[in-house]
Amino acid sequence: MQTTTEDKLVGDNQDGMGDLTPQDTLNDLRMSDKAVPLLNHVKRFIKETVDPMYEEFQKLGEGHTDRWSFAPGQLEVLQKAKDKAKEEGLWNFFLPDSETGEGLSNLDYAYIAIELGKSPLASETMNCSAPDTGNMEVLERVGTPEQKEQWLQPLLDGEIRSAYVMTEPNVATSDAKNVSTTAVLENGEWVINGEKHYISGAGDPRCKILIMMVKTNDGDDRNRNHSQILVPMDTPGVEIVGPMQVFGEDHAPRGHMHMRFNNVRVPESNMLLGEGRGFEISQLRLGPGRIHHCMRTIGKAEVALDYMVKRGNSRTAFGQTLSKLGGNLEKISRARIEIESMRLLVLKAAKAMDVLGNKEARVWVSMAKAAIPEKTCQIIDQAIQIHGAYGMSQFTPLPELYADVRHLRFADGPDEVHHMVVGRHEISQH
Amino acid sequence: MQTTTEDKLVGDNQDGMGDLTPQDTLNDLRMSDKAVPLLNHVKRFIKETVDPMYEEFQKLGEGHTDRWSFAPGQLEVLQKAKDKAKEEGLWNFFLPDSETGEGLSNLDYAYIAIELGKSPLASETMNCSAPDTGNMEVLERVGTPEQKEQWLQPLLDGEIRSAYVMTEPNVATSDAKNVSTTAVLENGEWVINGEKHYISGAGDPRCKILIMMVKTNDGDDRNRNHSQILVPMDTPGVEIVGPMQVFGEDHAPRGHMHMRFNNVRVPESNMLLGEGRGFEISQLRLGPGRIHHCMRTIGKAEVALDYMVKRGNSRTAFGQTLSKLGGNLEKISRARIEIESMRLLVLKAAKAMDVLGNKEARVWVSMAKAAIPEKTCQIIDQAIQIHGAYGMSQFTPLPELYADVRHLRFADGPDEVHHMVVGRHEISQH
Amino acid sequence: MQTTTEDKLVGDNQDGMGDLTPQDTLNDLRMSDKAVPLLNHVKRFIKETVDPMYEEFQKLGEGHTDRWSFAPGQLEVLQKAKDKAKEEGLWNFFLPDSETGEGLSNLDYAYIAIELGKSPLASETMNCSAPDTGNMEVLERVGTPEQKEQWLQPLLDGEIRSAYVMTEPNVATSDAKNVSTTAVLENGEWVINGEKHYISGAGDPRCKILIMMVKTNDGDDRNRNHSQILVPMDTPGVEIVGPMQVFGEDHAPRGHMHMRFNNVRVPESNMLLGEGRGFEISQLRLGPGRIHHCMRTIGKAEVALDYMVKRGNSRTAFGQTLSKLGGNLEKISRARIEIESMRLLVLKAAKAMDVLGNKEARVWVSMAKAAIPEKTCQIIDQAIQIHGAYGMSQFTPLPELYADVRHLRFADGPDEVHHMVVGRHEISQH
Amino acid sequence: MQTTTEDKLVGDNQDGMGDLTPQDTLNDLRMSDKAVPLLNHVKRFIKETVDPMYEEFQKLGEGHTDRWSFAPGQLEVLQKAKDKAKEEGLWNFFLPDSETGEGLSNLDYAYIAIELGKSPLASETMNCSAPDTGNMEVLERVGTPEQKEQWLQPLLDGEIRSAYVMTEPNVATSDAKNVSTTAVLENGEWVINGEKHYISGAGDPRCKILIMMVKTNDGDDRNRNHSQILVPMDTPGVEIVGPMQVFGEDHAPRGHMHMRFNNVRVPESNMLLGEGRGFEISQLRLGPGRIHHCMRTIGKAEVALDYMVKRGNSRTAFGQTLSKLGGNLEKISRARIEIESMRLLVLKAAKAMDVLGNKEARVWVSMAKAAIPEKTCQIIDQAIQIHGAYGMSQFTPLPELYADVRHLRFADGPDEVHHMVVGRHEISQH
Repeated sequence: MQTTTEDKLVGDNQDGMGDLTPQDTLNDLRMSDKAVPLLNHVKRFIKETVDPMYEEFQKLGEGHTDRWSFAPGQLEVLQKAKDKAKEEGLWNFFLPDSETGEGLSNLDYAYIAIELGKSPLASETMNCSAPDTGNMEVLERVGTPEQKEQWLQPLLDGEIRSAYVMTEPNVATSDAKNVSTTAVLENGEWVINGEKHYISGAGDPRCKILIMMVKTNDGDDRNRNHSQILVPMDTPGVEIVGPMQVFGEDHAPRGHMHMRFNNVRVPESNMLLGEGRGFEISQLRLGPGRIHHCMRTIGKAEVALDYMVKRGNSRTAFGQTLSKLGGNLEKISRARIEIESMRLLVLKAAKAMDVLGNKEARVWVSMAKAAIPEKTCQIIDQAIQIHGAYGMSQFTPLPELYADVRHLRFADGPDEVHHMVVGRHEISQH
Repeated sequence: MQTTTEDKLVGDNQDGMGDLTPQDTLNDLRMSDKAVPLLNHVKRFIKETVDPMYEEFQKLGEGHTDRWSFAPGQLEVLQKAKDKAKEEGLWNFFLPDSETGEGLSNLDYAYIAIELGKSPLASETMNCSAPDTGNMEVLERVGTPEQKEQWLQPLLDGEIRSAYVMTEPNVATSDAKNVSTTAVLENGEWVINGEKHYISGAGDPRCKILIMMVKTNDGDDRNRNHSQILVPMDTPGVEIVGPMQVFGEDHAPRGHMHMRFNNVRVPESNMLLGEGRGFEISQLRLGPGRIHHCMRTIGKAEVALDYMVKRGNSRTAFGQTLSKLGGNLEKISRARIEIESMRLLVLKAAKAMDVLGNKEARVWVSMAKAAIPEKTCQIIDQAIQIHGAYGMSQFTPLPELYADVRHLRFADGPDEVHHMVVGRHEISQH
Repeated sequence: MQTTTEDKLVGDNQDGMGDLTPQDTLNDLRMSDKAVPLLNHVKRFIKETVDPMYEEFQKLGEGHTDRWSFAPGQLEVLQKAKDKAKEEGLWNFFLPDSETGEGLSNLDYAYIAIELGKSPLASETMNCSAPDTGNMEVLERVGTPEQKEQWLQPLLDGEIRSAYVMTEPNVATSDAKNVSTTAVLENGEWVINGEKHYISGAGDPRCKILIMMVKTNDGDDRNRNHSQILVPMDTPGVEIVGPMQVFGEDHAPRGHMHMRFNNVRVPESNMLLGEGRGFEISQLRLGPGRIHHCMRTIGKAEVALDYMVKRGNSRTAFGQTLSKLGGNLEKISRARIEIESMRLLVLKAAKAMDVLGNKEARVWVSMAKAAIPEKTCQIIDQAIQIHGAYGMSQFTPLPELYADVRHLRFADGPDEVHHMVVGRHEISQH
Repeated sequence: MQTTTEDKLVGDNQDGMGDLTPQDTLNDLRMSDKAVPLLNHVKRFIKETVDPMYEEFQKLGEGHTDRWSFAPGQLEVLQKAKDKAKEEGLWNFFLPDSETGEGLSNLDYAYIAIELGKSPLASETMNCSAPDTGNMEVLERVGTPEQKEQWLQPLLDGEIRSAYVMTEPNVATSDAKNVSTTAVLENGEWVINGEKHYISGAGDPRCKILIMMVKTNDGDDRNRNHSQILVPMDTPGVEIVGPMQVFGEDHAPRGHMHMRFNNVRVPESNMLLGEGRGFEISQLRLGPGRIHHCMRTIGKAEVALDYMVKRGNSRTAFGQTLSKLGGNLEKISRARIEIESMRLLVLKAAKAMDVLGNKEARVWVSMAKAAIPEKTCQIIDQAIQIHGAYGMSQFTPLPELYADVRHLRFADGPDEVHHMVVGRHEISQH
């Protein structure tokens, strides 16, 4: 078995003792001094600007019947907050410095993203929301100058939005090699045919560009049959069939769309990185995308625990506050312990990305991704339970948090695939 | 400690061996011969009449925008199926024979209710749906001849529907003694003031009568401070504030309503059974209501496992069908084992009600109610997981099943209260 | 797919409604009237004879240093109790009537075996202890008249004991087709070579006969390569290497022995049923063996819960009895619910064996075997926890119960193999 | 509610943003540069000296029948290794530098203690084994010069051993205020009467001194009724009743002893710190004791996972290596994820002790103590399962690891008490 650096960094099964120096570095999970003021700024900005804006945004949406558009005024209040964020320098801080030479480290971003996770519109207001972040990272790293000018710049400016087009209805795309939508080169154009669904954000009227996984070959080397390609939303043949729901919510107007691609033609130059290199881009893209989800999820777990304790402290039954009744105190303790463990795990994974690079850190990322959404779902579920039926209502954020985090147990690879990555790595070390 | 018959029937800690005869009887979980043709009839009726009707019903609802009414034609197709059910004798079979002298035993009904649970409109079509069943049972047992004529008969005929008004927004009504909505006797009328929510079915235009838990006294004997009373829906002061959602679904037009009662006046004779006897009615009512929920839940667990296996068999990833990939086969096995265990437990609880009466069987009912919804939620969740994101979409029944069954972990007493009943009984035996 | 009767009896996925009659019969879990007095007799006998004898047996063992023999007097008090049991007709009641035409049904035996499980020497005193029961059943069903006379009769009389020789140290015998110990026919004798371990009871000085799984062929049909054969304990070449422990206990003098077979020669006629038919015997043998383990395990779970509640009621910490402190009451409730569910599941499996025969009932047996030991281990573990460290001491039966039941998660097939049986059956039904 | 520093350091519910600086420091989980060579030295020493010594030690013990003494030669080989450790400076490194000004930080020690946990005699060989470490820490911090000379010095030199005498058989000492053994001052002597059990190490012939929790008052302030006192082992009236087992093991000759104290008289000056200050000492003592257990437990979890994977990779059933069969790969992944999460949690708790002091860090310590032994038990249990019955035998370390770690779920406070500490802290923050 070939032993790579990364093989030595999970667990402590190092053979050579000289390897401890990197482990040492990996364990420094402090935020950098320079990032602390930014974190404080972000927290203040959420409290003073995002949260009040979100309240107004929600109020403007009440009674709006055309679900697949924003209500009048909504985009304006959002844009105003975005402008303010940009003006204050709270913008695009998701890009890690390891390879671009600017921005925050993954570790510094982790502390901030945990805060972003607590507030529904915080990420978007500071131009740090999925799937744009992943798409921008891909364009930044593999885009041509023309692609960057046409698509990356307006994304970085928060003028347009984007979608990532991967999942298919007719095959198990948890195994990405099953992707069946084809792109065939004809006369200098890629002709795309196929069906996709759960394309998050594709319903947003501001969504202008898709990054799409397609099959471009059918050769024996199954690692080289797929490619990623840019498809402008307004290309003829791009059809939105309708929205897919998530636990009864359609997240209109952004949506999770069911789409068909009927002889969609894009220029040969829209191919990213090169034909057959789709999975290389996935590796590059999915590390950050996955870990950002995990970071924000810690924030959501904190919100849930906060709701659990507040309700538990404020209600009385059978002569005791709910928080002390029966096994509730132990449930609260277990939630706190899991949150602290998950927080440390995601910080460690972020640090591993900073120190080792995304590829070498992939087992750490899979560890976080396999564990954090599942455990957070349990915490949210317990928070719901302590509320009684009210916990399932629209008057707490809990059901929406649950749907969001439950959805993460599929997004960017289902739990099972991440456990496969971690398990295979473990058995390969012996 | 006083030892009652029922104390001896959970577990096998009997001191005296002569008690085995009742245990013996309790263990005969066979459906009666006379009920088998009815079960077969019900299954055929669901397949041939209810399922096609449901499909049409759904189709008629598409594009209907006034959510708090039925779409044109919906009530007609439903009514037609109801007429057919009544005509074929598939009607009102929920009332157990132990005390009314007619109808099915709880055990016989269990086998049928499992089937009803598999199909969304089956219960209603055969006039066996909650909360009408519980309300009819209460009226049947404690109603005056006038109350029976005015409200029970049209309910038995399926002409009107009803709601049960218990849960309150401002206190923990999991402890029923916290119920704070008041009814004060003034000049031969009860004057009701208070706030309730999660009143299932109160949005249905056919809902005409409420059975309501109110506080009529504030004495030291906390078992005698509450009463149940009939409140016609059209009484002045009955206000529907709006719908409460359940995981993003409002179940319009039936709904789970938030209601206010503002100086609502009803005649003194609307009191059920007598002032201060509210909890007596609860005992009588909740046994059947709870166990019917559990029975139908077994049917829902079967549907979920069916979806899990079908999806698992039909998709391939990493070179294997999903049903054989990783730990999925074990998950399927565990689901089957839990379903069979839960089925036996609910049959046993139903039989205990038949043999011992609702009060004596209450620990068996609490055992079923504490376990079955929680375990079924896990099975549905695993069925969702094997589907990928599609499992959360509107194109499988799984998210709606999940919301339904998750809701049962609160309805008619949260899990925690039922565990308290079972645990206290257990420690009282020593 | 070929549909057999048994395929229809797990779950309720029957296609044809006419199949309900057998399901009906399966659900009658009453003990037969004729067996009730026997159960009462057994309970009385355990209380009046076995429990006092066990106390004396233990006392006689104190200070005995030659662990691999019984202490002076031990066998005598045991034998006296055995004689009394035989005299009173409490003897050999494990053999089901379905095929031998005498004895108890599996269902009747289940009620009794639950009681046997509560008392350490009860099974042996009434000649109903593993592995003799399984071995007697095999001899009864497939033995020749000579084999029956030589080995079955003294086993039925409780004069000798036996062992079942299956597990091997060098391969994973959870997959029985891996069994590698060879038997080669030479000059009318089978010559056996190989290594086995965890041979329970082989250390008992009364153990005279082994039933052994050996490999007799290496053909392509892997179902026909193995055989079962009788090997008298005193055959030259049968070597006991030493005892295998179970969680630090060696269960001397009965033991779980590591054995070697060095050119062990037995007559050709010692082959059971015929060469290559080893797995046929397994099927026949393992059904009863497995289900008897499960039955007794219910009794052990009752003992554990009894200890949990008694300790919880008798100790106080932080101002409350332990049984009401924190989440303990809920744990007690969950234990009771699981015990009742498991009891019903094992009764159903026993009934399935009575009605359908061992082969057709095998999925039911696997359901019970996969679930009951695992769940019981959890209950015992919680009983230990509520005792504090004392729960791990020799002064409660809990650690020994734990070791016994933990061991059952391997014996007669590990949990994983039984889940495989259940899961495969489930996916084959679609 | 009074807000202390510590209140702000669990979770991220800080009100003031200026508090982030300490959080920052807390997250630096790197071992110090100066400690890395020591860790490497310890690993090498275990491999080259301790492990071979342990093998010899075990071999010397074979056939030794006087269980409550060491076998001839055993103490000599152990002492030789101890001398070598002392000579090489691998000695007494458990004392944290925060208050004594020398030795390792808790964080540095954590990395080393994880290694110590992997090898049965490593801690003792380097004079870092429980309960001596806790006892030495107490004497170091609160002992008088005379007490230090008489007892601390020989303990630091590894010449004698000690025991900590807390748990009682007759009350729930999980609530330390229940301790009932009395010490009464008579004529300048404390007269001690009472019963204790599970006194680990008291059977060791080298054990010379006890630190004992006694009740010295019965006043209303239940925090001031107890004291800790030094009792030499050879004081008249100190009686060893016999050994308590742990899952069938008595850990002879060290043992977990049942003891009686019959009018045991010690000088007034043997009182530690002062009458009524017993719980102050507990706080001081238990932090390090608890966290050292958790650190070593991580090492044990690594050993278990290592065994799980090695067995899984080396055996084949049903056509696959066990590590890839069924759900095993996922179980391996989950074990690895939990180990990494637990490792980070214990490092964080150790760092909190370094930065905040033992008292302020107590919630972190309780989080680690409540979670790590429980989760490690599950990992060891799964490692056992993949081995088949062999996993319960004396030929793997797994059953002994299980008994050790299971025991930690009681030692130094049962899980439930630690969850109570964490839960109460959480609800106090709102």
